[in-house]
Amino acid sequence: MARLFHHPATEDISIDGVLYALADPTRRGIVAKLATCSGINCSQACEELPPSTVSHHHRILRESGLIRSEKKGVEVINSLRRSDIDSRFPGLLDAILNQSTA
Amino acid sequence: MARLFHHPATEDISIDGVLYALADPTRRGIVAKLATCSGINCSQACEELPPSTVSHHHRILRESGLIRSEKKGVEVINSLRRSDIDSRFPGLLDAILNQSTA
Repeated sequence: MARLFHHPATEDISIDGVLYALADPTRRGIVAKLATCSGINCSQACEELPPSTVSHHHRILRESGLIRSEKKGVEVINSLRRSDIDSRFPGLLDAILNQSTA
Repeated sequence: MARLFHHPATEDISIDGVLYALADPTRRGIVAKLATCSGINCSQACEELPPSTVSHHHRILRESGLIRSEKKGVEVINSLRRSDIDSRFPGLLDAILNQSTA
């Protein structure tokens, strides 16, 4: 059975949802990791956390519009919706990621 | 009886708390209003909201380190901790406020 993921359209991405999603250090870490690659699976993103926690964080990131999740074979590959976020909120993602890596 | 407000030290202001506080449109509105003035009382900041809601939002903003509340006579005057936030997280506040007024 295929798992279907809901992704908000770019114009429906809200700053409330993006800021809430990024107000958590684990989720900022996932986004920072995805910002440096083209797509990784959930367990690669958070090797030290239990799967249910990892899944929870990815769901919040996906529903906020920050990431895209795609099933490829037996894996779920997540990628950052960088151009969608940057077009919706110019400069915001960099301003936040620059802080969390400081 | 004097009301005492707790304000975190600048070095204790966390990006988690700031992003969470700003993930709400009413609180972003308060911060945007405070960014344009030297200090206003709570009811001036949110004329359309009930006092308990206004108080709740100001408490979250204060505890995150975004605003300072000071009792002056019978009023509580709130002001933005702009230099504290800017020194702690350079560029972050502007990046967020620029979006919410777009």
